[in-house]
Amino acid sequence: MPANTEKPEQTGTGVRRRHLLFGGAAAGLGALAAAGAQLASSGAATNPAQAVEANGSETVPFYGPRQAGIDTGAQAHGVFIALDLSPESTPQRIKSLLKLLSSDAANLTQGRAALADTEGELALRPARLTVTFGFGPRLVDAVRPERRPSWLKELPAFSIDKLVPEFSDGDLLLQICGDDPLTVAHAQRMLLKDSRSFTTVRWVQTGFRRAYGTEKPGTTMRNLFGQVDGTSNPEPGTEGFEKVVYGDGKIPAWTENGTSLVIRRISMNLDKWDELDRSGREESVGRKLSNGAPLTGSGEHDDPDFAAVNPVGFPVIAEFSHLRRARPEDPNQRIFRRAFNYDASPGTGALSDSGLIFASYQADVDQQFVPIQRSLDELDLLNEWTTPVGSAVFAIPPGCAPGGFVGEQLFS
Amino acid sequence: MPANTEKPEQTGTGVRRRHLLFGGAAAGLGALAAAGAQLASSGAATNPAQAVEANGSETVPFYGPRQAGIDTGAQAHGVFIALDLSPESTPQRIKSLLKLLSSDAANLTQGRAALADTEGELALRPARLTVTFGFGPRLVDAVRPERRPSWLKELPAFSIDKLVPEFSDGDLLLQICGDDPLTVAHAQRMLLKDSRSFTTVRWVQTGFRRAYGTEKPGTTMRNLFGQVDGTSNPEPGTEGFEKVVYGDGKIPAWTENGTSLVIRRISMNLDKWDELDRSGREESVGRKLSNGAPLTGSGEHDDPDFAAVNPVGFPVIAEFSHLRRARPEDPNQRIFRRAFNYDASPGTGALSDSGLIFASYQADVDQQFVPIQRSLDELDLLNEWTTPVGSAVFAIPPGCAPGGFVGEQLFS
Repeated sequence: MPANTEKPEQTGTGVRRRHLLFGGAAAGLGALAAAGAQLASSGAATNPAQAVEANGSETVPFYGPRQAGIDTGAQAHGVFIALDLSPESTPQRIKSLLKLLSSDAANLTQGRAALADTEGELALRPARLTVTFGFGPRLVDAVRPERRPSWLKELPAFSIDKLVPEFSDGDLLLQICGDDPLTVAHAQRMLLKDSRSFTTVRWVQTGFRRAYGTEKPGTTMRNLFGQVDGTSNPEPGTEGFEKVVYGDGKIPAWTENGTSLVIRRISMNLDKWDELDRSGREESVGRKLSNGAPLTGSGEHDDPDFAAVNPVGFPVIAEFSHLRRARPEDPNQRIFRRAFNYDASPGTGALSDSGLIFASYQADVDQQFVPIQRSLDELDLLNEWTTPVGSAVFAIPPGCAPGGFVGEQLFS
Repeated sequence: MPANTEKPEQTGTGVRRRHLLFGGAAAGLGALAAAGAQLASSGAATNPAQAVEANGSETVPFYGPRQAGIDTGAQAHGVFIALDLSPESTPQRIKSLLKLLSSDAANLTQGRAALADTEGELALRPARLTVTFGFGPRLVDAVRPERRPSWLKELPAFSIDKLVPEFSDGDLLLQICGDDPLTVAHAQRMLLKDSRSFTTVRWVQTGFRRAYGTEKPGTTMRNLFGQVDGTSNPEPGTEGFEKVVYGDGKIPAWTENGTSLVIRRISMNLDKWDELDRSGREESVGRKLSNGAPLTGSGEHDDPDFAAVNPVGFPVIAEFSHLRRARPEDPNQRIFRRAFNYDASPGTGALSDSGLIFASYQADVDQQFVPIQRSLDELDLLNEWTTPVGSAVFAIPPGCAPGGFVGEQLFS
């Protein structure tokens, strides 16, 4: 098609005139000039007819003292993959794997094809892609067992758990997040391809939040129960966030600028939840469904008034409510949540297989995550409708500089 | 938080200042005023703190002579669900089900909670949601067997097929597409909830294309082989599209403004595809990977020159190439494709379970789809890497006006 031809284009609301094709592409591709150069050398090329828009070209830096994908505003799509090291893994082989995957992540997140990328064109729309690596207990033990943090182990058993191995544990975590599902799928494929000589896939959990452009960035997500979920999260960039996620220096030296990640797959029984009316739902959570405000307030971020009582003397925010049970007495017992909804294909006879991939970052699992989970385990009305079916704990190593690789501190 | 407070907000590329919170909300929610009124009456309310952006508020009309979701520019997410009628289904019960689901779709697609919607807030971001209904052979037979179109039956067996029942056939199809995955998940939940007294879920296939805002609307998609996929599709709004999808009036009267949909689940063997180099890949398809141009041209939409030969006398676009085999001699043998990629969790020991949900619309399955498929079955090099594992055929009834329901013509 000649460069200056306009052609009618179908949109959701009717037919409009397309932007001048090459004009739009030239502007949009500016941010990807480097990517184009890189791809040319790998044998692929950008496709000017496939014009990139704003979402497609946004990038999150890969290199830095800390890994991306934690303080990054949560993207629309998140995939969590746990790999198991093959039995013959040596520290040398683990190091080779981490170098390879770090190189892939450094390219893919910047909209460049990975080194051995045979579908390089799929890499050209970074769409805020991040890749975050985590180490399970066995990986650390295989390299420097004496360096394993005390909290890097299976969580204690909770009475509410009904864990299945196909969503639990693992040696190496790949957290791949981005605003474009095709970009995420390609990154997943590329990283798994480069892992296959070293590992086997243990589990894959795919989740989502609102799409790019649906709501303003920073809007608190809703889960599939319809609840505003994650209101009291510490805000990246604040002192509170720093302390919760990166701690106060009492962590092992190799994990400075590192943190920990607990992934819990929480099955949500939508059919049972349906039987509850709105006031019952609000009471179980302690928040309004309309905007997430505590039952004692009117705005989402209002402080809950736990002392308030209703006319007959009962607490407005009930003892058994999730809001009260999840809020620790000890201000050090805080976590940073970065959850994604999941909605898998229902099994035979079922209507849904839905829930939450609850991803919790904290400097110390034992000091922060476990006490909160214990409180919820003891008494949380939401347990009536939710069941943890998967559980895994990973150390999130620091980031790296160009030329380095994620996890290098463990080997030094 | 007070209405005029600015607060720092984390984005992909750093910290920027948030829009004035309520100011942004007021502007963005304009398009949803009607939705708010509706929700208020259903007990829910819009959340002004969850400000909607452009993508969130776009709607596609539900009512009209034809169903939406066919000439609608393909959205980022598509879910195809096949339901089986329960054994005790009567025409009266089927009619009740269709009325209920049509009402749900009419509300949800316009950003309004459905009638018995217990998570009404999840409906407030339509993001170009469309719901398209299709009837399998058994549904039509249960109502007016004499009206079943001759093509509404299982496809003939093809030698390349390895079909499994868990992705084949079905009585009632729900095609749910939208640019926001949470909106799609909520619509799926709502429609399945309202179907559960009448049907059981036979299969669910979830797919994706590029996200809203990644590429300009109308850009041809790429599949997980990295190929530009669907270049020669007729363009909605053109005469060609009209004829391919809605035919020339020789269809049964009750399906005027209706069409047919063939859904083929095509498993794509990425591991085997990896063994092929770029020139081998291009030869197998007959198009360049970089931009989808035919091997005889330079632009995606250039006409292929099937007569061109290379210096040693062989056709530049090989006899066995997908481009040549999929292009029929008879210009009436055309289809309209609206495919989605799928990337399911790999099974034990596998690296991927990926492919294409190939959705093909045409006025007459036997006259249009079957001959093309037969040609590909006989000889198409791509068959080396792709395997159809699911197959289903549905009649797509016309649309309806307010007060009516999709499929009403079958009952009159």
